[in-house]
Amino acid sequence: MTGVSVVGVGMIPFGKYPEKNIADLGWPAVKAAIKDAGIEPKRIQAAYSGTARGGAMVGQRILGRLGLAGMPVVNVENACSSSSSALRQAVIAVQSGAYDIVLVIGVEKLSKFGGGTLPLDEDDWEVRLGLSMPALYAMRAQRYMHDYGVKLEQLARVSVKNRRNGALNPDAQMRKEVTVDEVLSSRMIADPFTLLQCCPTGDGAAAIILASNTAAHKIRRDPIHVRASHLTSGKFMAGFRDMTSPEITVRGAHECFEEAGLGPNDIDVAEVHDAFSIAELLYYEAFGFCPRGEGAALLESGATCLGGRIPINPSGGLLAKGHPVGATGAAQVVEIVRQLRGEAGPRQVEGAKVGLTHATGGGISGFDHGACSIHVFQR
Amino acid sequence: MTGVSVVGVGMIPFGKYPEKNIADLGWPAVKAAIKDAGIEPKRIQAAYSGTARGGAMVGQRILGRLGLAGMPVVNVENACSSSSSALRQAVIAVQSGAYDIVLVIGVEKLSKFGGGTLPLDEDDWEVRLGLSMPALYAMRAQRYMHDYGVKLEQLARVSVKNRRNGALNPDAQMRKEVTVDEVLSSRMIADPFTLLQCCPTGDGAAAIILASNTAAHKIRRDPIHVRASHLTSGKFMAGFRDMTSPEITVRGAHECFEEAGLGPNDIDVAEVHDAFSIAELLYYEAFGFCPRGEGAALLESGATCLGGRIPINPSGGLLAKGHPVGATGAAQVVEIVRQLRGEAGPRQVEGAKVGLTHATGGGISGFDHGACSIHVFQR
Repeated sequence: MTGVSVVGVGMIPFGKYPEKNIADLGWPAVKAAIKDAGIEPKRIQAAYSGTARGGAMVGQRILGRLGLAGMPVVNVENACSSSSSALRQAVIAVQSGAYDIVLVIGVEKLSKFGGGTLPLDEDDWEVRLGLSMPALYAMRAQRYMHDYGVKLEQLARVSVKNRRNGALNPDAQMRKEVTVDEVLSSRMIADPFTLLQCCPTGDGAAAIILASNTAAHKIRRDPIHVRASHLTSGKFMAGFRDMTSPEITVRGAHECFEEAGLGPNDIDVAEVHDAFSIAELLYYEAFGFCPRGEGAALLESGATCLGGRIPINPSGGLLAKGHPVGATGAAQVVEIVRQLRGEAGPRQVEGAKVGLTHATGGGISGFDHGACSIHVFQR
Repeated sequence: MTGVSVVGVGMIPFGKYPEKNIADLGWPAVKAAIKDAGIEPKRIQAAYSGTARGGAMVGQRILGRLGLAGMPVVNVENACSSSSSALRQAVIAVQSGAYDIVLVIGVEKLSKFGGGTLPLDEDDWEVRLGLSMPALYAMRAQRYMHDYGVKLEQLARVSVKNRRNGALNPDAQMRKEVTVDEVLSSRMIADPFTLLQCCPTGDGAAAIILASNTAAHKIRRDPIHVRASHLTSGKFMAGFRDMTSPEITVRGAHECFEEAGLGPNDIDVAEVHDAFSIAELLYYEAFGFCPRGEGAALLESGATCLGGRIPINPSGGLLAKGHPVGATGAAQVVEIVRQLRGEAGPRQVEGAKVGLTHATGGGISGFDHGACSIHVFQR
């Protein structure tokens, strides 16, 4: 099977762009990725575009702005995993030999919904009954605090860390550091979550250019190899037997590490899906970065901070970089590629060789149903 | 590259099911395809689900009804080409060696929009200004009639033929034959189109099970081989230099025939995207079934009728079988597979060995942007 590498990445700073439409958001990210790869745009043979709520034919609309028509374009939806699922398909396509050079786009404009939670599908009965995404994660947080004796201050430290990282990232939506007190005294959203423990809504776009390893080494001297590419689906959440163990991420991590021939100790840096403060702790444990119930202690040890053993979300993560749903998976890859190339500036994880991205979604409709996509990259 | 075959197909009769949700529509089609393949459901390793306006995580919701969780599920949107694009990705995935057995779903519930044209995206300026899909095709029809001296009666005969075929198809939404007079005297929609020259809105679902050739021959004695699988994008329509030449279909047909090593004369039966009466004539010409401007004459010769040289839309096509957008591409494959297996009953194309499906979309937002997916199957 053909090996696959990343040869270009680009994104726009996440934020609120109410005056822009989805194509306005997307094309500068694609242009940046093409520039980063240093290739002729016409060498791109196919595009995979991920968006959760961007509308119809988003990939075509974005490429049209760049005069790039005539290639196969596939628009992928998988809730918060939309662009990571698009990446997975792009990897398969290059592996199959169908294409040598493929573009992946992630894009979303949430500001058109006026903020807050996303609009409902007709069958979103659980959401109608109050089980919105913050409420769901809040239940998990309550259970976690109960089971492991974790305190509000410890949860808040996830936001403090990620805001600190985001302050170092010019592409982050939230670039102001916050204290534990500020986190805890911000507006209550869903007990125990205050506002600063919930990722912001916003708009954004990110793009990745993949190439077969053969093509990649001709394009640049430092392609980043896709060591493992994984997608699965399953139960996302409530009603599941064990509320503090995210089933699809636990299983996905296991299968992905197996594919990579690696384990949690081999990961130098990771971007995980910290949609709420508790989520990051649950995912530390799901990936085996620490045993169950020890996520808060891992954070407090400094291991997941910049300069620690396994820095998590150096970009600021969803909590600080922002979470324009369909853009998130691709933006995680932008960060990891920059880290592995040593281009991350003041938030650089020194000597990072192996990085991981993790985007998991569900719950826009049908809380039983989730997706989880994990990728491992190596320089 | 691994060869790919169809080992199972299933669909629900297209129609209006306002009381059902998208998962209600989808699961019986999947179940029928699994039954048709005669495989254990757990052998399916991945699913590709196409829907244009079905909402979030539709594939997961459908599979959840069948207790099929834990596999990679990718939701694909490409307007009218949604499930044919999903099929294209599924073919690539099997070719890559990633999976042996893969499910493709196409599903849509248009009745939730209350009929008529689809709701607008925020940027649908052309639609807001009146260039809805019927209007667009009407302009093409006017130009075509002007250029080639084609009469209203000749356009109407497309509907007459496809309604006649649909009357033989228990899965068709419209099962009543109509006369040229009935077509022309039905309500005016967009001059020259009367109601019976426009495909109906409706709900539907269809499913396909693909397997690598090696696996396929163990599953059944008569797998249908995917001889070519093609997807492209480009200009869909208005403002394009030549309004009566559908650019993406012309180019797609050329590239797809090249891939298959076949030409139009090798096709025994085809399902093409007859969203409006004129469309079928344009596509006869785009595929080279006749020279430009001779589509109406080809129809009048009887060549594209059942019993003719190259029967087109034996299922009734979009005009009679119906056009639940995301379901259409997959349903075309259901028909062609049944034809190639000799299972099409009173509408059987005798001795059909090579069949073609063609789904092309665009215009839900951004009339410049379209997708076109063509597949060639062989028994």
